[in-house]
Amino acid sequence: MRFFEFVQISRKVVVVLIFCGLGACEQKEAEAPVPKMPFLESEWIDLSYAFDSTTLYWPNNPDGFQHRVDAEGVTDLGYYYSSYTILTPEHGGTHLDAPIHFFAKGETVDELPLSKLTGEAVVIDVSGKALEDRDYLIDSVAILNWEAEHGKIPVQAMVLFRTGYGKFYPDREAYFGTAKSGAEAIPELHFPGIQPETATWLAKTRKVKAVGLDTPSLDFGQSKDFAAHQALMENQIPGFENVANLDLLPPTGIYVVALPMKIKGGSGGPLRIIATIIE
Amino acid sequence: MRFFEFVQISRKVVVVLIFCGLGACEQKEAEAPVPKMPFLESEWIDLSYAFDSTTLYWPNNPDGFQHRVDAEGVTDLGYYYSSYTILTPEHGGTHLDAPIHFFAKGETVDELPLSKLTGEAVVIDVSGKALEDRDYLIDSVAILNWEAEHGKIPVQAMVLFRTGYGKFYPDREAYFGTAKSGAEAIPELHFPGIQPETATWLAKTRKVKAVGLDTPSLDFGQSKDFAAHQALMENQIPGFENVANLDLLPPTGIYVVALPMKIKGGSGGPLRIIATIIE
Repeated sequence: MRFFEFVQISRKVVVVLIFCGLGACEQKEAEAPVPKMPFLESEWIDLSYAFDSTTLYWPNNPDGFQHRVDAEGVTDLGYYYSSYTILTPEHGGTHLDAPIHFFAKGETVDELPLSKLTGEAVVIDVSGKALEDRDYLIDSVAILNWEAEHGKIPVQAMVLFRTGYGKFYPDREAYFGTAKSGAEAIPELHFPGIQPETATWLAKTRKVKAVGLDTPSLDFGQSKDFAAHQALMENQIPGFENVANLDLLPPTGIYVVALPMKIKGGSGGPLRIIATIIE
Repeated sequence: MRFFEFVQISRKVVVVLIFCGLGACEQKEAEAPVPKMPFLESEWIDLSYAFDSTTLYWPNNPDGFQHRVDAEGVTDLGYYYSSYTILTPEHGGTHLDAPIHFFAKGETVDELPLSKLTGEAVVIDVSGKALEDRDYLIDSVAILNWEAEHGKIPVQAMVLFRTGYGKFYPDREAYFGTAKSGAEAIPELHFPGIQPETATWLAKTRKVKAVGLDTPSLDFGQSKDFAAHQALMENQIPGFENVANLDLLPPTGIYVVALPMKIKGGSGGPLRIIATIIE
């Protein structure tokens, strides 16, 4: 390259550099091709059981799920039409516990902000111990062991515990530990849950925003005072119960959308919960 | 700047430019920090009304929404506890119409794949004409006009029509066109809807995967045969009715998650629908 040409090119380059110094290049960088719609390719996994006559409710619940036929068939005008009415206790099947379920000043299901119902989640697999001992309590040691392998639970994450009991749903005896119904079944409930002190620890030290699991209750079957519920709900943390398909998720890198039916003043309600893998 | 310094700087710049010319800069750009979890920062907008005693159902529906108290107060063991049972027709408030609602071979609400309930959406604002004429029918001309401004509706998109009637909810008279209830109210229903031919056109030429709007029905109030419903549902396209807050969304660049209660065999059901803006 001849010196004259070099200076000419250099001058152009300097002009470009000055131009960049004025911020014009940054603007160009911002316009660089970034994935326009990062969600679009997402495949979602359904973590929800369907509601039907097999849906599991607490043993003393008299109603269960009812699906009343209002219309079903070809109308006088010649077109097909079907329509039904449902009746369901708020707490049964895959459902959400709103903080007011166990805390008088708790948020109702319709008051829960979407920021508590959407976001990053982790799955902590405790199925080894839980399947060995129907009265197993998930404790902070189990969580710290998980963290040693997978890293600390991110702040404001949803924590989903996989006890392995999901594989029994909707077999009442295998899932609840008793096939009995009515009040007399309650002393015979045996399924794992969260140790109350650990529920407080999750709220205070890990600042989780929601907790879910694949059993009928955040508390274990033998609980009398539902102290894990109380501990979470005093901290305005909702719970997800009877969550399905947790075996399909990795331990980390999960985004969850958990949308309960928006019942004004509800203590909980039917929940549709889905997840996608993001890393 | 002295000439010697200028040449030195220029030389470095030329080296960088040659480096970039060899493709190294493109590589660097590809390695630039891409958001690891693109969903995480998403803020969601709730497009769902709460269910309560004001929830609007079709005028001849005898039940409405019922929220029965099963427990509410401090228990003998000293902790607060509340729990309720709900009764609701599948079609009322913010809800989903599954294809089987008007098509015998249609998918039931639990059969709808999540791919039909999540994805890119557009909002087509027809409120100008719809608020002028309570019997307004959304036609393909209105959609083509919208496309002239915003581009063609993407294939497999959800289409949400904003009629502007959402602002009347839950004022029955303003929303439905009559304050009457019972069968005698039905001939007096006046609210806008989708022209049946246009419903077919949306299914066949635009291959939409779901259609929603801020009125009680995909069909207009004066419809006798619900032909827009039939046209969509014969194509296995679900509908979202009584969708809230469509005025908060831009015309394009929207991602929607629409999760109905998973009712086995349901013709529809309570819907929680949320949206986030992605561009």
